Amino acid sequence: MVSQSSAKKLKNLYKIEKIRHSLAHILALAVQELYPGTKFGIGPAIENGFYYDFDLPKEISNVDLPKIEEKMKELIGQNITFKKRVIKKEEAEKIFKDQPYKLELIKEIEGESVSIYESGKFVDLCAGPHVKSTKEINPEAFKLRKIAGAYWKGNEKNPMLTRIYGIAFEKKEELENFLKKETEAEKRDHRVLGQKLELFLFDEEIGAGLPIWTPKGTILRKIIQDYLYEELKNAGYLWVTTPHIGNLNLWKTSGHWELYRENMYSPIKIDEEEYLIKPMNCPFHVKIYKSKIRSYKDLPIKYAEFGTVYRYERSGVLHGLTRVRGFTQDDAHIFCTPDQLTTEVEKLLKHGIKILKTFGFKDFNVYLATRPEKFAGTEKMWKKAMNVLKYVLKKQKLNYQIDPGGGVFYGPKIDIKIKDCLQREWQCTTIQVDFNLPERFDLNFIDKKGRKQRVIMIHRALLGSIERFVGVLIEHYGGAFPLWLAPEQIWIIPVASRHKKYAKEIKESLQVSGFRCQLKDEKETVSKKIREGEIQKIPYMLVVGDKEEKSKSVRVRERQKGDIGEMKIEKFVEKVKIEIEKRK
Amino acid sequence: MVSQSSAKKLKNLYKIEKIRHSLAHILALAVQELYPGTKFGIGPAIENGFYYDFDLPKEISNVDLPKIEEKMKELIGQNITFKKRVIKKEEAEKIFKDQPYKLELIKEIEGESVSIYESGKFVDLCAGPHVKSTKEINPEAFKLRKIAGAYWKGNEKNPMLTRIYGIAFEKKEELENFLKKETEAEKRDHRVLGQKLELFLFDEEIGAGLPIWTPKGTILRKIIQDYLYEELKNAGYLWVTTPHIGNLNLWKTSGHWELYRENMYSPIKIDEEEYLIKPMNCPFHVKIYKSKIRSYKDLPIKYAEFGTVYRYERSGVLHGLTRVRGFTQDDAHIFCTPDQLTTEVEKLLKHGIKILKTFGFKDFNVYLATRPEKFAGTEKMWKKAMNVLKYVLKKQKLNYQIDPGGGVFYGPKIDIKIKDCLQREWQCTTIQVDFNLPERFDLNFIDKKGRKQRVIMIHRALLGSIERFVGVLIEHYGGAFPLWLAPEQIWIIPVASRHKKYAKEIKESLQVSGFRCQLKDEKETVSKKIREGEIQKIPYMLVVGDKEEKSKSVRVRERQKGDIGEMKIEKFVEKVKIEIEKRK
Repeated sequence: MVSQSSAKKLKNLYKIEKIRHSLAHILALAVQELYPGTKFGIGPAIENGFYYDFDLPKEISNVDLPKIEEKMKELIGQNITFKKRVIKKEEAEKIFKDQPYKLELIKEIEGESVSIYESGKFVDLCAGPHVKSTKEINPEAFKLRKIAGAYWKGNEKNPMLTRIYGIAFEKKEELENFLKKETEAEKRDHRVLGQKLELFLFDEEIGAGLPIWTPKGTILRKIIQDYLYEELKNAGYLWVTTPHIGNLNLWKTSGHWELYRENMYSPIKIDEEEYLIKPMNCPFHVKIYKSKIRSYKDLPIKYAEFGTVYRYERSGVLHGLTRVRGFTQDDAHIFCTPDQLTTEVEKLLKHGIKILKTFGFKDFNVYLATRPEKFAGTEKMWKKAMNVLKYVLKKQKLNYQIDPGGGVFYGPKIDIKIKDCLQREWQCTTIQVDFNLPERFDLNFIDKKGRKQRVIMIHRALLGSIERFVGVLIEHYGGAFPLWLAPEQIWIIPVASRHKKYAKEIKESLQVSGFRCQLKDEKETVSKKIREGEIQKIPYMLVVGDKEEKSKSVRVRERQKGDIGEMKIEKFVEKVKIEIEKRK
Repeated sequence: MVSQSSAKKLKNLYKIEKIRHSLAHILALAVQELYPGTKFGIGPAIENGFYYDFDLPKEISNVDLPKIEEKMKELIGQNITFKKRVIKKEEAEKIFKDQPYKLELIKEIEGESVSIYESGKFVDLCAGPHVKSTKEINPEAFKLRKIAGAYWKGNEKNPMLTRIYGIAFEKKEELENFLKKETEAEKRDHRVLGQKLELFLFDEEIGAGLPIWTPKGTILRKIIQDYLYEELKNAGYLWVTTPHIGNLNLWKTSGHWELYRENMYSPIKIDEEEYLIKPMNCPFHVKIYKSKIRSYKDLPIKYAEFGTVYRYERSGVLHGLTRVRGFTQDDAHIFCTPDQLTTEVEKLLKHGIKILKTFGFKDFNVYLATRPEKFAGTEKMWKKAMNVLKYVLKKQKLNYQIDPGGGVFYGPKIDIKIKDCLQREWQCTTIQVDFNLPERFDLNFIDKKGRKQRVIMIHRALLGSIERFVGVLIEHYGGAFPLWLAPEQIWIIPVASRHKKYAKEIKESLQVSGFRCQLKDEKETVSKKIREGEIQKIPYMLVVGDKEEKSKSVRVRERQKGDIGEMKIEKFVEKVKIEIEKRK
C-alpha cells in the first residue's frame, strides 16, 4: 500500500519533472529565436533540472547564458501553451525536414505514428509529459548553469553538439536553497580543504590519481586504520599482509584477467614471466586460506587487510581522493560453511553500521543488487544467497532498494551508501557473496562427517577505500573533524616567551594522556596563532600566560565556540576525555 | 701499530690459508689418481675451506665424495711435499700440454716466467703459498662437502666444470665446532621456522620472492612497526604515505632511470604515459619536502615511511625473507642545513643502535664507505661529509672499517651490520648523505639572511627491510622470540571442559592488560597442547584445573624452563610486565 505522504511525494515529483521537461523546450524555443538555423538534438529533464543539445550555427559560451535566460523568462511571460499531437510518421518527416537529428529519431521509433509537442513557434518530437502552459512555471525558480560539449547519442564518432544545462524547481526558495547547498558543498570541497589543512597532495610528476599523504594526512589515516584494526581484531578477524604484484597466472586462475582486465594495468615483465599490479586482494587471501587443510571447526575464518590496490580510471573522471588510480581498501574475506552464511552476513551488517555511525554517519541508503545477465554459480545458489541477504536485511529492519541486475558476476551483494550532512550519497560498504573464487581455486573444508565441502566466501569492504572515505569525511565535517579524528587535537599557545616552559609542561602532560598536541611557540602574536588555528580547524587551543601559569590552569578556546574560559588542566583533560568517549 | 694479538691472528690466518690452499692441490691429486684424464681448472682457498674445478672424464656426484676424501687422507699420510719452481713459460706450456685450461692461464700471466708447485705426481700452475709438506695438515680436520657446476671463469659461454667444495681447519675440534654451528644454523633456518611457526608463506602462482604474511606474521610485523612508529614519532619524525607507482618522468628526474634501471621492473603503460613500480621511496619524500617553501626554522624535517618497494633480483639468489623481490623499508629522509649535518648523523647513529639493541642485537660491525669512481657532487663536498661521518663515529666510540669506494654514487655512507647469536653478519642499518637528489630536484631552504640555500639530505633505513629483519630475528632467536615480540605470548589451557569458563576469564583479564593470548580449548589432551605450544615456542602456557580455579591462580609453564609452579594471576601479570619492561 502506498501511504498518503508517499502519494503526495510522487505527485510532486511528477509535477517538477513536467516543469523541467517543459523548460528544456522553452530553452530550445529561445535558442531557435536567438540563433536561427539551429538543429535540435534532445532535451530531457534530469536530476535537479534539464538540458538541451544543439547544433548551433555559431559558437556560444557561458557568457551567452544570461541572454538566453532572459529570452526564456520573456517567453514564459507569454503564457505559451504545450499542445500534443499524435501524427503519422510521414507528416512528422515533413515537419522536421530541416532537422536531421529529429529525422534520425523518427526512423528509430517503432510503429507508424509519433507524438509531437507544439509550444509557440517550437515544435518538438516528444512523448511528453509537459505543463499545460508556461503559467505553471515560476520564472524565478530556474537558472541556466553551463555549456558543455556532448556527442550526439554519446558516441564519439557522431558530431559534437552544444549542451546547455539548467536547474529548475517549483519555487524560488527551492532554487535558492539548492544554490546555497552547492556553495556549502564548494566550501567543503575536500580537494581545497585537503590542501588548506595539509592532509594530502598530488604531484604531476608522480602522476594523476596518486595521492601523497603528508604528515597530518598520514596521522588521520592511522587513526582510522588503528581504530579498524582493533575493532576487527576484537571481532575475530585475522590481519594479513600481501604483496602488491602477483604473477599473471594467479589472475588467470582467479578470472580477473578474463573478466576485469579493463580495470587492470599492463603487465610487468620479470625474467620470462609477467606480473600484474593488484586491482584486488582476493586471490592473495584465497591463497592463505588454501595453504592449510581447513576443518569446519576452524570456520569462519576472516582475513582482513589494508590492501593498496591499483585500478585504471580514465584521467577525465579522476577527482581528488574520491576517484583515484591507487587506493587502500579496508578489505576482508570471510570463509564460512553454508550454514554460517546467514549469521556472518548479519554480523557484517551490524558491525559495519556500528562502525559507520562511530565516524558520524547516521543515514544510509541500502541496496540489494541482484543477478546480472552473465553470472557464475547456479540459479539455485543465487536464489539461496539472495534469500539470505533479504532475510538479514529484513531482520535488521533495514529499508532497502533493489538494484536489478546490479550484482557482480560472482554473486549478489548488499551496498550501503552513506549520506553526508548535505544529504549526498557515497558508496562505501559492500558485502558480496562469491560463488566464483571458491570454484576457481578449489577451496574446501572438511565437514563433520570428514567429507570435503566447498567453502562459502564473502568479500566485504566497510569504508570501501581509505582515500575516498577520508574525502567524504572531509566534506561531511567541512574539515572540522571530531576530536578523536583530528590529526592535531590541541594547540598550546604561550602568551609570551616566558610562558614557554609552562606551555611545554602542559603539552607533555597532555601527550602522556594520549592527546595529539602542538606547542605553538613561534615568534608571532597570539591572535595570529588563533586565526591560524581556526583556519586549521583545531578543536582546542589553550592559551597560557601569567595568570594561567600561577593557577595551574589553561584558557580554553573551543572550535566554533571561541573562548570558553579558564580551566584547571585536570578539568580540561576530563572534559576532552569525555568528548572522545562519546564517539562510541 | 699492529698489536701482538693481531700479529698472532694474522699469522694463524696465513697458516690456515696455506693449509686450505694445499688441500685444494691434494684434492686435485686424488682426483687425478681416481679419474685419469681429468683436465684441471683452478683451486683456491676460500672462506672456511677450498674448492677445485675439474673437467672430468666421467660424471660424478655427492656419493663419490667419501671415496675422494679417503684418497686424500691416504695421500696426506704419505707426507707429500710441496715444491715451488719458477720456470719459463715455454717450459710450463710443455708440462701442461694436455691441460687446456692451464695453457689458457699461462697465456694470461704477464712476464716471461711462471711459478709451479709439485706435490707428488700432481703439478699445478700456482703462485702459492703452500705448506711445506702434508705433515702440516690434520687429516681429521677437513671434509669434502658438495659438488656443484661452475662455468670456467664464471662465464656461461665457457664449458661447465665440476667444482668440489671442502672445508678445512687446523684442528679437529674446529671442524667439529664449524659443523655444529652449521647444524645450529640449519635448525634456525628462518624458511623452515617461518613455516613451522606459521609466520609467512610463499606461493608459486603468486610469484618467487614475494612473501605473503599470515596472521601471526602480520602481528609480528605490526609489533615491530608500532614500536618504530612511536620511537620515531617521539624523535621528531613525521610519518608519510606514498604510492607504489610513479610516472617515468619522476624516475628520470631523480636519476634512477639512468643509474638504477637494472634493479627496476619494466614500465606499466597508463594511457599515453609510462609508470614504474617504485624501487625506492626517496623521490616521493622529496616531493613532500618541495611542496612548500621551507625556512631554516623548519629544519631538520624528517619524513619516515614503511614504504614497500620492489627491486629486481635474479631468481637464483632469492632466499626466504632475506633476499626477496618486494620488501617494506623502514625508510626515512632527513632534510637539514649544512650546520645540522653533524648533529643529525650523531642522533641517527645513537638512536639506531639503541633500537637495534632493543631487538636483542648487541654486536655490530660498522663500515664507512668512501667515494666510488663515479660520483655526484664535488670532491670538496665528499671530503666534508666524510669528515662529518668520521667525526661522529669517533665521538660515538664506534670502531669501524673503511669500505674503500663502497659509497653510493650520490654520497658517503655508514653501514651497520648486526651480528646474530651465531656471529653471522647481517646488513641492516645504512646512513647515507645524498648530494644528488637536492640538486636534481632543486631542493632549498631559506636561510637566516633570507637567501635560498641548497638543503642537505640524508637517507637512512634502520632495520633495512622488515622482511629481512624478521628473517634475521627468526634465526637469531631460533623462533623463540622474546616476550614483547612473540605474536602469541600466552596460551591458556583448561584441564577439562568444566574449566573453560575460568580459562576464558583469565584470557580476558590478560587481554585487558594488553597481552596476546590464546584460549586452547580444543578437544585434545593437555600434554598434546603443551607439546604443540613448545613447537610453536610460546613464551608462557598457563594450565588451569580445579585447584587453580579454586585458588584464583594459574599453573605456569615458561618456555625452555617448563613448569615453574602455581602463581596467583596478579603475580603472573606482574612477572610478565617486568619481563616486557626489561627490553627497554
